[in-house]
Amino acid sequence: MMYLHTRSPLATARQVYKPPLPGILQDLAAIRWVPEAPLPQNLAMQPLFPHTYSHPFLRAKKGSRLPSKPLRVGVVFSGGPAPGGHNVVGGLYEALKRLHPDSSLLGFLDGPEGVILGKGKELDAATLELYRNQGGFDLLGSGRFKIETQEQMELARLSLEKLGLEGLVIVGGDDSNTNAAVLAEYFLDKKSGLKVIGVPKTIDGDLRNPYVKVPFGFDTACKVYAECIGNIASDALSARKYYHFIRLMGRSASHIALECALATHPNLTFIGEEVAQLKMSLKQIVKEIADLITKRAREKKHFGVIVIPEGLIEFIPEVRVLIQELNLNPKTLSAVSTQLFSSFPKKIQQQLLLDRDPHGNVRVSSIETEFLLLELVKQELAPAIPFSAVNHFFGYEGRAAFPSNFDCQYCTVLGYGAALLLFAQKTGMMAAVPNLLDPPLEWQLGGVPLVSLMQFEMRKGKQKPVIAKALVDLQGPAFISFKQQRVAWELQDAYCNPGPVQFFGPAELTDSLPFS
Amino acid sequence: MMYLHTRSPLATARQVYKPPLPGILQDLAAIRWVPEAPLPQNLAMQPLFPHTYSHPFLRAKKGSRLPSKPLRVGVVFSGGPAPGGHNVVGGLYEALKRLHPDSSLLGFLDGPEGVILGKGKELDAATLELYRNQGGFDLLGSGRFKIETQEQMELARLSLEKLGLEGLVIVGGDDSNTNAAVLAEYFLDKKSGLKVIGVPKTIDGDLRNPYVKVPFGFDTACKVYAECIGNIASDALSARKYYHFIRLMGRSASHIALECALATHPNLTFIGEEVAQLKMSLKQIVKEIADLITKRAREKKHFGVIVIPEGLIEFIPEVRVLIQELNLNPKTLSAVSTQLFSSFPKKIQQQLLLDRDPHGNVRVSSIETEFLLLELVKQELAPAIPFSAVNHFFGYEGRAAFPSNFDCQYCTVLGYGAALLLFAQKTGMMAAVPNLLDPPLEWQLGGVPLVSLMQFEMRKGKQKPVIAKALVDLQGPAFISFKQQRVAWELQDAYCNPGPVQFFGPAELTDSLPFS
Repeated sequence: MMYLHTRSPLATARQVYKPPLPGILQDLAAIRWVPEAPLPQNLAMQPLFPHTYSHPFLRAKKGSRLPSKPLRVGVVFSGGPAPGGHNVVGGLYEALKRLHPDSSLLGFLDGPEGVILGKGKELDAATLELYRNQGGFDLLGSGRFKIETQEQMELARLSLEKLGLEGLVIVGGDDSNTNAAVLAEYFLDKKSGLKVIGVPKTIDGDLRNPYVKVPFGFDTACKVYAECIGNIASDALSARKYYHFIRLMGRSASHIALECALATHPNLTFIGEEVAQLKMSLKQIVKEIADLITKRAREKKHFGVIVIPEGLIEFIPEVRVLIQELNLNPKTLSAVSTQLFSSFPKKIQQQLLLDRDPHGNVRVSSIETEFLLLELVKQELAPAIPFSAVNHFFGYEGRAAFPSNFDCQYCTVLGYGAALLLFAQKTGMMAAVPNLLDPPLEWQLGGVPLVSLMQFEMRKGKQKPVIAKALVDLQGPAFISFKQQRVAWELQDAYCNPGPVQFFGPAELTDSLPFS
Repeated sequence: MMYLHTRSPLATARQVYKPPLPGILQDLAAIRWVPEAPLPQNLAMQPLFPHTYSHPFLRAKKGSRLPSKPLRVGVVFSGGPAPGGHNVVGGLYEALKRLHPDSSLLGFLDGPEGVILGKGKELDAATLELYRNQGGFDLLGSGRFKIETQEQMELARLSLEKLGLEGLVIVGGDDSNTNAAVLAEYFLDKKSGLKVIGVPKTIDGDLRNPYVKVPFGFDTACKVYAECIGNIASDALSARKYYHFIRLMGRSASHIALECALATHPNLTFIGEEVAQLKMSLKQIVKEIADLITKRAREKKHFGVIVIPEGLIEFIPEVRVLIQELNLNPKTLSAVSTQLFSSFPKKIQQQLLLDRDPHGNVRVSSIETEFLLLELVKQELAPAIPFSAVNHFFGYEGRAAFPSNFDCQYCTVLGYGAALLLFAQKTGMMAAVPNLLDPPLEWQLGGVPLVSLMQFEMRKGKQKPVIAKALVDLQGPAFISFKQQRVAWELQDAYCNPGPVQFFGPAELTDSLPFS
């Protein structure tokens, strides 16, 4: 089964582009993984990860050439698509073949379930050529299935060994990389030779750590959303009659909203993490919007752009409580939650009551927060203030877009990194580019021990070791830059339109880095 | 008042681009407007347009140079923004100045109301330079106000004469060009020397005639929507779990949906004009979608992309009747309409009842047809068929985008055309490029007599002369090409992702023409 869609002229043009490789990748067989000073001991993890809890960070350095041997590796996409995934597979394949021409790469189909079912396809250069620099995960498909239980891990081991594989590369977000850590430990425990390497993927941008400035896909997805927001802002300024309430994908963390705000300068952008820190109530948020609209109305500006992160709703204390109570039992809401719930528009009430995820929990991502705020703002505004508003939600527009040059390069190098870690028999590691903000030709390669990223969190009522989602750092330079500019954006309409991603022309346009 | 937003690197890069001018524009003072064989007599219009009803089509030809004199002209944007509007103003200014350095251009602010109020600003080269190839109408703003009544036309005449103007260029859609025709006639009738020229603008693509293959803005807007649809299709194919119901702006006509379908190959696209021709009922439409989902489910494809034009709802006979009845009196619905109405989800019922335009009519453009269909499809599908769906609506994302090279060139030349028509004392004309599908350097210039485009239509219960909206031609090459391909698209997932508009690189990418 091959999901090869019809080629557009851009698809063909992009296929020709060869992401430049950093100098360190000139001679693959000469690369050594050098351990750095030990990381802070993650002792709490020792009982659960006895074999991998003390792994150090590894950095690729040039050494003398070593004799090479063929390697047989599997790769799988986990979770929603992110721009650049095909380049991870392409880079992985290229590196394996450069290390030894008899190496081979098996792509598992439809996500981690494909690993257990042994559903895969042998990849070759001609096929991967077609997918170079193309968006989507459609070469292999993906899935949200997780290899979690002992039984599933054993099935995975049997399947991988039967297929003659020596290593598995899991391309995924925080949860998938958590699973990669558990699986690596399990294989060591079972004395299997199987190795597991994770690759940091998520448009949400919440898989970050000192060695991973940003996961792949975030740059491209934000650029697509910023294109749309920039166009809408330009429309608002031209038509001068609508407020645009724009909700952006991104789960809990507000990285996408922050990045897009820095790119487009909306009149108002909420950052969930700040709302939580300030313990802002829903009423305060509504009032902040209504106040802005009132202030702008005084300047005869009855238009504007307001950006709302998908996760905002969960950062509002009383809404968080309401959702928790609804998850337990919608029939036993507290008095406060009952009152809050009944203040919501019917449509939102229905979304809270009826739209549940497979665990029976409220599906936060499908709550139309932009509509909720819009309706509440209507009630809050003085009747004399003109107010017409339009809702938007952006998410699926960016997850499978043509990757930016940055994501093309980053993903190719991550693929190389995963191959080189496996070649050196490393396991339980995340491939990384520790100096991602330097020019790509100077990029280095790192291996981040997955366990070093873990902490305990409550999941389904139990303490579980997980790679925590990285929230927006309210002390970080991106948020500080936003904070310094946002007052000016409220009334001045300093909208910026970054326009569509460019793949040709000046490097300033084609090779720009994310802001945050 | 100047609405100059913050510059992005692309905004700056685009400003540098100089749309190439066709050969005919080398020597402006040598251009003659040559009348062609008379158009079919529009005799019904004679009583209303005694001075302009028999104007012939004019074509610009090279003659000998004529002595030049300064011209003072006004320009106004009417209705929603469309990519390229700033280039119309830029081309107009450039041509006026080339014709005579003492010519001047006044831009009216906030649409046609600005004309009556005399609210404008003198335009200069430095300002226009900043807006070259930029999206939006924010240089001047726009508005939906129409100069319609005798009193309004007289106020416009007084205002324009007071400002020392000799001509007015109205950049707008079908309604605005209708007003341009009425105004031109009025000025002739009043023996005023004022001339009026229309410029065909609308992303909806429904302002077409034998001399205007496509209005400006349509190409760019469709490219932005197609980028989003292409990305969503690629996501659908990767995640393999959602049906995406995508509604597209475009009022009555389905040009945008057709153009985007040809660019992206969705599994199913409705064309309102075909639905009307086949007299499809809502039930049949819902069944067609449900059947497709069922067929795809047999191939284990629980995902897809379905494109729905905004105007579809009005093309469905029984819904059309319902809307007409609701416009008259929601309390006296017929039995059929009552039954249909009560079969709708609550949210749609509310949109039909509460969301009214300034004339008290149902606001068709704000009916979430994609949601209505999705809900009805859910009821129609056999319970065993897996069905998860996501809604989208695209419109505001494309109206103020950076214009494509095609729209940049087209608009600049339209601006030149308007200037040259005014310079030759022509009035009641629409500037046009009659051979728009030839290479831009070979483009010709035409003047289409506005009255030749008019016919009588019922408006607010009265027969009114209007420029009719051009619907999709079901015998035309675009629709026929779509019809030939669409069966293959149903099951094969032959999605095409055109990607973001490119402004640099191969001409095949930067200078492509619209499909339809």
